[in-house]
Amino acid sequence: MVKVGILGLGTVGGSVAKILQKNKKIIEARSGKKIVVKAGVALEDKDFDFPVTKDPMDVINDPEIDIIVEVMGGIDFPYKLVKQALLNGKAVVTANKAMLAYHRYELQEIAGDIPLMYEASTAGGIPIIGALRNGLSANHIESIMGIMNGTSNFILTKMIQEGAAYEDVLKEAQELGYAEADPTFDVGGFDASHKLLILASIAFGIDAKPEDILIEGIEGIMQTDVEFAKDFEYVIKLLGVAKRVNGGVELRVHPVMIPQKSMIAKVDGVMNAVMVQGDCVGETLYYGAGAGGDATASAVIADIIDIVRGNTNPMLGYKKSLESGLKLLSKEEITSQYYLRLSVEDKKGVLAQITNLLSDLDISIEAMMQKPDSDQDEYVEILFITHKCKERSIQEAIAKLEQLSVVKNKIGMIRIEQ
Amino acid sequence: MVKVGILGLGTVGGSVAKILQKNKKIIEARSGKKIVVKAGVALEDKDFDFPVTKDPMDVINDPEIDIIVEVMGGIDFPYKLVKQALLNGKAVVTANKAMLAYHRYELQEIAGDIPLMYEASTAGGIPIIGALRNGLSANHIESIMGIMNGTSNFILTKMIQEGAAYEDVLKEAQELGYAEADPTFDVGGFDASHKLLILASIAFGIDAKPEDILIEGIEGIMQTDVEFAKDFEYVIKLLGVAKRVNGGVELRVHPVMIPQKSMIAKVDGVMNAVMVQGDCVGETLYYGAGAGGDATASAVIADIIDIVRGNTNPMLGYKKSLESGLKLLSKEEITSQYYLRLSVEDKKGVLAQITNLLSDLDISIEAMMQKPDSDQDEYVEILFITHKCKERSIQEAIAKLEQLSVVKNKIGMIRIEQ
Repeated sequence: MVKVGILGLGTVGGSVAKILQKNKKIIEARSGKKIVVKAGVALEDKDFDFPVTKDPMDVINDPEIDIIVEVMGGIDFPYKLVKQALLNGKAVVTANKAMLAYHRYELQEIAGDIPLMYEASTAGGIPIIGALRNGLSANHIESIMGIMNGTSNFILTKMIQEGAAYEDVLKEAQELGYAEADPTFDVGGFDASHKLLILASIAFGIDAKPEDILIEGIEGIMQTDVEFAKDFEYVIKLLGVAKRVNGGVELRVHPVMIPQKSMIAKVDGVMNAVMVQGDCVGETLYYGAGAGGDATASAVIADIIDIVRGNTNPMLGYKKSLESGLKLLSKEEITSQYYLRLSVEDKKGVLAQITNLLSDLDISIEAMMQKPDSDQDEYVEILFITHKCKERSIQEAIAKLEQLSVVKNKIGMIRIEQ
Repeated sequence: MVKVGILGLGTVGGSVAKILQKNKKIIEARSGKKIVVKAGVALEDKDFDFPVTKDPMDVINDPEIDIIVEVMGGIDFPYKLVKQALLNGKAVVTANKAMLAYHRYELQEIAGDIPLMYEASTAGGIPIIGALRNGLSANHIESIMGIMNGTSNFILTKMIQEGAAYEDVLKEAQELGYAEADPTFDVGGFDASHKLLILASIAFGIDAKPEDILIEGIEGIMQTDVEFAKDFEYVIKLLGVAKRVNGGVELRVHPVMIPQKSMIAKVDGVMNAVMVQGDCVGETLYYGAGAGGDATASAVIADIIDIVRGNTNPMLGYKKSLESGLKLLSKEEITSQYYLRLSVEDKKGVLAQITNLLSDLDISIEAMMQKPDSDQDEYVEILFITHKCKERSIQEAIAKLEQLSVVKNKIGMIRIEQ
């Protein structure tokens, strides 16, 4: 018999306990052993058929417990607890993406040969960690593009399918419980960045923290952008992108225009999907529920079963250190095509002024569209797509364009991936 | 150092040897050990940087070889070889779906604790075996629906997107090398059935052979069917379906009308995808290249790496026998909605005659369309969708309808999945 202690009995922890009970026969057949919850930790009283304590150390120091499930959330407190559990020789399963975004390499060091599993940390129930660490292990990974935040994908899908404004859909998402009262963590790209960093470690062996990478949210996306994307057969998605380019790795989270015909463009609503391109396997995609108690518990319990089966996967995918020489590219080095939205005064010479400025910065234009600004009569909106250029150039262009007196407000910018 | 022997140096075996060399640094970092090919088997002379012999037993009996890769194809001969390799204590990695469709349970018995891995046998480079055996192991699987034959999906995609006739697209597929001169194994559903049986063992612990299940191909699909499907927002795909229903399991391969909006409906061309529905995780989907040397080798080498890492997955997903009581349902017990295509004489009373016959068999109609038969003036085509009914009833209805003198030719039938 294998005994589990659960730190955190909220939605996910509660589902883990429930499913371990409900599916116990098939779980025993698959793992080879009975798996039971010996104890759990919660700050409030909870009604479970195992003892619930307020002090995590009761569980972490319980000599009968073999596996600790950490589903509390937070960063430094759970890190301290997981560290202690590992030092006590207990295997750990965590769903905590934020803790891993900051502490995965220290945890790998501390864990050594003790299993530390985290399938549930990224894209909920989708077994993307297993796919990347095991299924695609023969490949040099070329790129990862993931829809890894259901809230943002729900909002963008509604904006695309119903022509609704960002603020209205956000409100609807909040009413449906898909978005928090303060939605910044989701719509600002921070949640997705944690998941991206975890995947990037397995794919490229690259260490980075959220502060090191480019993170932009969907708050500035307007219907104008959505419609322009449609006209050019793109859709707008919030993507986490990890890409091997010129001996380095780009890591970034931001809204992207991607071709409608690509598989990941077809992922709608709160669903998640991760596209992985490998040098042998080509393009693969993994799709499913990225959140929710039962879906996340599915991944937590899969990790428990793997531990019970005796699997010995290296935590971050490498048994020996990888001397790939791959370094995180600075934000300025990113190369992309860009979509820009400018609202400018409707008068002679303005377009020439803009195009000259871009030309001076070696930015060339692939497609352009001009139309009346729906908000203000004396302004027109100029929308265009550039050819590939450096992030540094586009940022300089935007800064200079915003200084022009004929340009109203902030300029909208969305990167394009083919 | 781990030494590999490759039985079969065709497209896949050649790719395995090539990638083990090309990606050796990252493979060593991920697995922890150097992995080299010690010897290979081929009937013709081949130019590799390891010895190539004509006699598989040279490799199987080589005491220095740790892992045998079987990528020869065939059923009974490779089974004999794999059996001997296991008896010699060697781990085995195979891409051979036909051998597994017939011998997977004997092989599981023989292997015992020796690893026998087969990720490459199903859906090429897509890590669907790992997803099902490890990633979704907490779930009762409710259904699997897979596009697992690229040839058939290529043909159906062209028929849908270009309005082309089956025969013309088949010819094109043959010219492009996507279809064999005798395409029966692919377009007849047999290839997909082997893969479905492998997945069904992991999902449901169910033993069955190709002869036991319903297998129909795409040879009878006409443009009329494709257009009708479009009108009702369906697409036609050749699916392998495994479904838990009323304490039993339906296993079947046949063309299916599925809603355009479902993710699997969006998988076009030679690509493969498998949708798995679990009771905790909900719907997940796995997409990628289902064939090709490098994509298949990606899966073979992933299995080699798993073995070298020391992973101990139960071959068919169960460490203990599963007493689920799930039995294979007989073909006649399958329940579905059905689409029927009849070409009938264009005269009074015919429609009444048909609908009365259906009504007598308790088959009710959900949607119907009548239009002139493009081939013959005095005939009309009647197309309809039934409500759910038993396979037995629809087969009886078709047999009776085909005996009516007003009905021309064979009746077209396609099952519908929502």
